Amino acid sequence: MTDFKEFRAYITKMNALASVLEMIDWDNETLAPKESFKQTAVMSSALAGLYHQLISAPELVQMIEDLKKQELRADENAILRLVKKEIEHLREIPQEEYEEYNRLTSVAGSIWAEAKRNNEYSGFAKVLEQLIDLSKKFCKYRGAAGKKAYDLLLDDYEEGFTQKELDLFFDQLKESIVPLLKDIQTKGRKIDTSFLHQPYSVEKQREFCNWLAKYLGFDFDRGVIAESEHPFTTSFHNKNVRITNHFYEDNPMSAIFSLIHETGHALFEMNIADELTQTPAGTQMSMGIHESQSRFYENLLGRSKEFWIPLYGHLQETFPEQLGQVSLDDFADAINVVSADCIRTEADELTYPLHILVRYEIEKAFITEEIDTEKLPKIWNEKYQQYLGITPPDDTKGILQDIHWAGGSFGYFPSYALGSAFGAQMMAHMREVMDVDSILAAGDINVITRYLTAHIHRFGASKSSREILKDMTGEDFNPKYYVEYLENKYRKLYHI
Amino acid sequence: MTDFKEFRAYITKMNALASVLEMIDWDNETLAPKESFKQTAVMSSALAGLYHQLISAPELVQMIEDLKKQELRADENAILRLVKKEIEHLREIPQEEYEEYNRLTSVAGSIWAEAKRNNEYSGFAKVLEQLIDLSKKFCKYRGAAGKKAYDLLLDDYEEGFTQKELDLFFDQLKESIVPLLKDIQTKGRKIDTSFLHQPYSVEKQREFCNWLAKYLGFDFDRGVIAESEHPFTTSFHNKNVRITNHFYEDNPMSAIFSLIHETGHALFEMNIADELTQTPAGTQMSMGIHESQSRFYENLLGRSKEFWIPLYGHLQETFPEQLGQVSLDDFADAINVVSADCIRTEADELTYPLHILVRYEIEKAFITEEIDTEKLPKIWNEKYQQYLGITPPDDTKGILQDIHWAGGSFGYFPSYALGSAFGAQMMAHMREVMDVDSILAAGDINVITRYLTAHIHRFGASKSSREILKDMTGEDFNPKYYVEYLENKYRKLYHI
Repeated sequence: MTDFKEFRAYITKMNALASVLEMIDWDNETLAPKESFKQTAVMSSALAGLYHQLISAPELVQMIEDLKKQELRADENAILRLVKKEIEHLREIPQEEYEEYNRLTSVAGSIWAEAKRNNEYSGFAKVLEQLIDLSKKFCKYRGAAGKKAYDLLLDDYEEGFTQKELDLFFDQLKESIVPLLKDIQTKGRKIDTSFLHQPYSVEKQREFCNWLAKYLGFDFDRGVIAESEHPFTTSFHNKNVRITNHFYEDNPMSAIFSLIHETGHALFEMNIADELTQTPAGTQMSMGIHESQSRFYENLLGRSKEFWIPLYGHLQETFPEQLGQVSLDDFADAINVVSADCIRTEADELTYPLHILVRYEIEKAFITEEIDTEKLPKIWNEKYQQYLGITPPDDTKGILQDIHWAGGSFGYFPSYALGSAFGAQMMAHMREVMDVDSILAAGDINVITRYLTAHIHRFGASKSSREILKDMTGEDFNPKYYVEYLENKYRKLYHI
Repeated sequence: MTDFKEFRAYITKMNALASVLEMIDWDNETLAPKESFKQTAVMSSALAGLYHQLISAPELVQMIEDLKKQELRADENAILRLVKKEIEHLREIPQEEYEEYNRLTSVAGSIWAEAKRNNEYSGFAKVLEQLIDLSKKFCKYRGAAGKKAYDLLLDDYEEGFTQKELDLFFDQLKESIVPLLKDIQTKGRKIDTSFLHQPYSVEKQREFCNWLAKYLGFDFDRGVIAESEHPFTTSFHNKNVRITNHFYEDNPMSAIFSLIHETGHALFEMNIADELTQTPAGTQMSMGIHESQSRFYENLLGRSKEFWIPLYGHLQETFPEQLGQVSLDDFADAINVVSADCIRTEADELTYPLHILVRYEIEKAFITEEIDTEKLPKIWNEKYQQYLGITPPDDTKGILQDIHWAGGSFGYFPSYALGSAFGAQMMAHMREVMDVDSILAAGDINVITRYLTAHIHRFGASKSSREILKDMTGEDFNPKYYVEYLENKYRKLYHI
């Protein structure tokens, strides 16, 4: 008869493999030399094969059967449930094809980077097609084709969410945001942002970001901040959490808000309970809930005037020439300015979900139908024109801007918009139980983090996003909070 | 019937595990946050367990039996032989104990670092004892106890070398170097080194070291240089090679010669043939041959006047205040000054093997006999007095200075002295086939590296050190070249 300890030892091996695969990715993005990727991909592929071997071993299924008959603690049950889900996810996929897929995603990252650098989409189209085909094939192995395939992929990232529900969600956003954006563009007042677009020393940006990370509660004894092309967060366990940032001399807000965003992810990872870390319940969690936290810190907290009350003085001291004469009110307005631009990661809070909408519609299409990947840039540009009123000048600023598809992550993008909506619902609830604005103004952001930890972070992936929302706010997912929040905030800001 | 491709796919998995264990070590030494080590050790232990599982699987033995009957290429045979050796090394050790050992070595690194920081040997004594006991236990599993245990450990690092041979080797060194050192101390001329002990900007040291690495042939497209407490080299495959360095403001030669030393290792790793990399023949090679290369670059090349002819001008330009008035001759003398000091890694070329002698005698003693680890600092200090005429002021500068024992590496230290002796034998041969001094003076160090690649590097671990020496120099290992080299060089330098 299996005891939980034995099972735990087994999944510790699985988890170690999953974590070193993350470590390889981290290393590739932050440090690895440029000729290394192909051979390192051989390592990743081999390790993924070992992971597959462990997850599909009959002995694991037997252990789970044994344990299901026993009385377990809640955290143990959660781990068991997630391992079962992972088994169902992978066991129908032949190991060799899974290894090939992992080799491909590992190589695709550098192909994408080169295509982006050279603004040559065609260099990337082929590998993207291979990834889409493999992804569909895997869905088929798991019993899902066509419409059902995309549902399956969505469920991988966001348990219990379907295309049908997301179509409704995005329709609501479209109905509200597209006309709101038009109103802002035609009737809104002009907001001055010129002071944010001057030279800001990168060294001083770095210093300020480190100071800000500490203020936000990023624990440097349990985490690392490095630099990479595209900011991201990864975690090997709750005491080894990594974020990256990037710096542009003429756009300090890019680094500052990336830092706040990634720190939101990092706080989640650092605050996961010790019982759950190094298990499937301590990683691979709902992407929507994860994004709710990063976007909560970045937008709902970080773009409010109150957040900056205890911080703005230090920012002015760091950049006296650029900001010494700018009032906090003018600064707070400027960091919320709406501007329809091409790049998702640099987008303001209002247009952001429209960027996601474009990606959602495109990936839904190429997963559920047959679409020539060569045609995607055209579709991409048309949708940007339709929803944001702009056309990207080139593919680097268009379809090549994001790494996700190169990583085989189809069904991930919607989580960003869902995360924003989850966050708005959480914030509406929090405003009922505490005076968020006064807490921020007093420099007590840790009070907010503690509340989020108690209701969200500590559970890791042991609860689904719906459970988290229900238990925290007393209500199932409801997009109205998000739409209301955006309408109120931006009509007020633009005096319309 | 197994074909080699199938076998190769299997060992690719083993190798991926070995390489990510190296990557975790690299990350721990260069970047990981301080609270992470214990949980990361859980990962290392689990991965080592998987490695053990793969190496001791009956299916691997079967594959090897099958392949032995087939006609294979030389590189394939070498890989086969090394995998067999690795199987023999591990298969008698129970997997749980091997995992425990790996967990222990992973944790011991941070216990050692703390003990060293706080100068508290007692904090380290207990874990060292556990490591020694486990190491002896593993030797027993492999059929060796007492004297034979240390022979087995020596053979792990240096195939075909025994205690008996090393006793003879170290006796020769002792007989020659101890009196030579006394002569230098009592009758040698004074060499001025004061200009090397002034403030040298760390930023400029870093710049110069990067420039020097490029000159030496370190390929930044296939390698990375970072910083750590203790300089080291690691490699995940021949296109992903890593070295570290450390900087002291008042001692620029420490960083410069560490850089040359580690680059010697790195060139070896980068120049291993593509057929061998990512197999056991592309890693875990003879430590003596590896050290022969690092010490070849550091001492036999890097401390010669001719090496500095094309470089010294740039060093002077980088540090005009400190070196502008110092002649190349005075500089070349100063970087060869002999001084009996406590720290191995900072030791000059002549006293270096005496540092190794101390470690050799101590580890031989605690492996072949029962010695209370609490007593080791006393023994250490007595031997330093006996051979070098000095007593370390504290344990941080004494027994706690090196990480090796904390990593469970017993039997490794002798390779450093052997490596120096291999290098001297190689150099004696090279002086017969090319004009080494003129090549160095002309700035053509790549000519030398190409020769070393052809005769050493490209073979990785596919040949033993004895085979390498024999094939390259036409002679078995012969320590006389090393002793003669040291005698000639230092009697001339000190006018004795």
